Amino acid sequence: MTKHEKLMAKCLELARKGIGYVSPNPLVGCIITKNNNIIGKGYHRKFGGNHAEVEAILDAKSKGYNLKGATLYVNLEPCIHYGKTPPCVDRILQEKIKRVVIATPDPNPLVNGKGIKKLREKNVEVITNVLEEESKDLNKFFFKYITTGLPYVTLKVAQSLDGKIALLNFSSKYITSEESLKEVHRLRSAYDSVLVGKNTILYDNPSLTVRLTKGRNPNRIIIDRTNSLPLDRKVFTDKYNHKTYVITSTNIFNKKNKNLKPFINYIPIKESYFNLSTILKSLSRLGIASVLVEGGKSLFSQFIQSKYFDELVIFISPKIIGQGISSFDNFKIDNLKKAKNLHISELRNCGSDIFFQLKK
Amino acid sequence: MTKHEKLMAKCLELARKGIGYVSPNPLVGCIITKNNNIIGKGYHRKFGGNHAEVEAILDAKSKGYNLKGATLYVNLEPCIHYGKTPPCVDRILQEKIKRVVIATPDPNPLVNGKGIKKLREKNVEVITNVLEEESKDLNKFFFKYITTGLPYVTLKVAQSLDGKIALLNFSSKYITSEESLKEVHRLRSAYDSVLVGKNTILYDNPSLTVRLTKGRNPNRIIIDRTNSLPLDRKVFTDKYNHKTYVITSTNIFNKKNKNLKPFINYIPIKESYFNLSTILKSLSRLGIASVLVEGGKSLFSQFIQSKYFDELVIFISPKIIGQGISSFDNFKIDNLKKAKNLHISELRNCGSDIFFQLKK
Repeated sequence: MTKHEKLMAKCLELARKGIGYVSPNPLVGCIITKNNNIIGKGYHRKFGGNHAEVEAILDAKSKGYNLKGATLYVNLEPCIHYGKTPPCVDRILQEKIKRVVIATPDPNPLVNGKGIKKLREKNVEVITNVLEEESKDLNKFFFKYITTGLPYVTLKVAQSLDGKIALLNFSSKYITSEESLKEVHRLRSAYDSVLVGKNTILYDNPSLTVRLTKGRNPNRIIIDRTNSLPLDRKVFTDKYNHKTYVITSTNIFNKKNKNLKPFINYIPIKESYFNLSTILKSLSRLGIASVLVEGGKSLFSQFIQSKYFDELVIFISPKIIGQGISSFDNFKIDNLKKAKNLHISELRNCGSDIFFQLKK
Repeated sequence: MTKHEKLMAKCLELARKGIGYVSPNPLVGCIITKNNNIIGKGYHRKFGGNHAEVEAILDAKSKGYNLKGATLYVNLEPCIHYGKTPPCVDRILQEKIKRVVIATPDPNPLVNGKGIKKLREKNVEVITNVLEEESKDLNKFFFKYITTGLPYVTLKVAQSLDGKIALLNFSSKYITSEESLKEVHRLRSAYDSVLVGKNTILYDNPSLTVRLTKGRNPNRIIIDRTNSLPLDRKVFTDKYNHKTYVITSTNIFNKKNKNLKPFINYIPIKESYFNLSTILKSLSRLGIASVLVEGGKSLFSQFIQSKYFDELVIFISPKIIGQGISSFDNFKIDNLKKAKNLHISELRNCGSDIFFQLKK
């Protein structure tokens, strides 16, 4: 690793501290150096809060440093527009920082190279593309959301070696190990929302919260077209039910449905537009930039057949179940060439299980 | 690694050269050193041929070395009994070798520590348990066979991410990558036999030979109780058909079945004893110490429910098939605690696929 890469890696490490709290903003970390010493650090802590650059500048100044001639490392191009805070580029110029090292341009159409251009015009040296891939991966939710207007969608499957997510009697508790469950909770704490089909709530009655690790709970989105789920389910009755959203058909919703409950949020969608595309757009409008799909097989199958998923994570437990519910068997192909091919982006042990991350 | 371990690793490397040719004998490699120089090397090349120790002694002597005071490294305890060749222990004593370094005792009841005992009684220094685990793993077939009288059984499954070994229309060609197919051929070249059920021959018509890598063809064992497979299948008609065995019911066999073919071997088993236990014992009596089970799901399911398999290797291709033939769904459990739990002994990429080795 070069010196720039090492310092950018530290920015990414700082940025990660914002996981779960900054969405739909990007995760950004910033380090300021002068005469080869780190004099300021900061990261974007919370949606609406200071940008990382400002945090690092304030940190350095609080220690009495003059930033003139300093170098600023940041994993995303500094902004040039007035959002919830003033433009970072102006602040950098004001502090007479002489060099800015960036991992990636900001794909936000309001920035997208304009920040870099303005800095260079004002004679600030700008170095770009340092740890670009790592940085894009860290902000994969933001990049997808800002460029397409749709959330980043990951399917999460926990299955046996023989591809079963439950027994024929729908029993599915503890297919995977405790360590895998922890990993699932870590994922939940990083995603803006988890999305499940009606049957998952009906049969498994999951909490879909973060318990085995620290982190905030995601929004819980349930697709229940006919709004017919019993109201005794955990997602409707626990103390986080203000974070529960039911996606239902407008027809049903408008019929003064008695199955509506206080605190629960409803997203009514017109019957003729009731599909993954409309559902994801509705979530996007709520500021949801990332969706972790947790089942069941019908929803998994719909996503696999669509273009709307970005990633698949699978926990495979080394056990053989025999007959059971398969992870994705609500569709059929007649030729192996029509199978959905993915590529493995990560593979590792997870407790006694295996964790796969796959991308399209 | 210590000096002893490094030299034992070389023995194991030599031993591997015998893969496919020495069964049901063990794979054995031998190195002789004197004054810290390697002066002789050898390995057991072929069933009935010289033992590794003799090969290494002859190698050293052919180069003019006197073995008095030398150290001999060998991965299996030298034999003390007259088999197809005279006892190696006597030869070691005769050559006045002063030290013997061994990976594991020979579990063969005819040896089993007696070789080590005799060497020590004759004042040869014996060091044992050097790279013991690696050595046992290399000779897993031999260890199973010699201690239980049954062959080592490995189930080999090639499946999609969602646990399918074929489409609903039985199409299964090219589920996995070329690299995985090569690995399967390497496995075949190391196993004494491949075993398949009748339907695999009927629907897939495989050759079950070694083509994508160097190595000898395994015996091809087909379970066809009613001996009703069509005789145009590759295993019956190709030039290796003298290595094809059909396991069939005695009742059928004795009825002057017209479906018998020259060159093909038949293993008739009494109807009332027609089960995995009898089948494996019959193979064992033919000197078959290892069996690679290549399908289909009915045979896989029978083995998984029995105590007769030792290992499972799975190639998982990163594709989603949807509805299809599951690898193991000829049985059903009503509680996840009854699932067959395995542990992962190896995990690696294999071309675009993943290779798992699992043990009970």
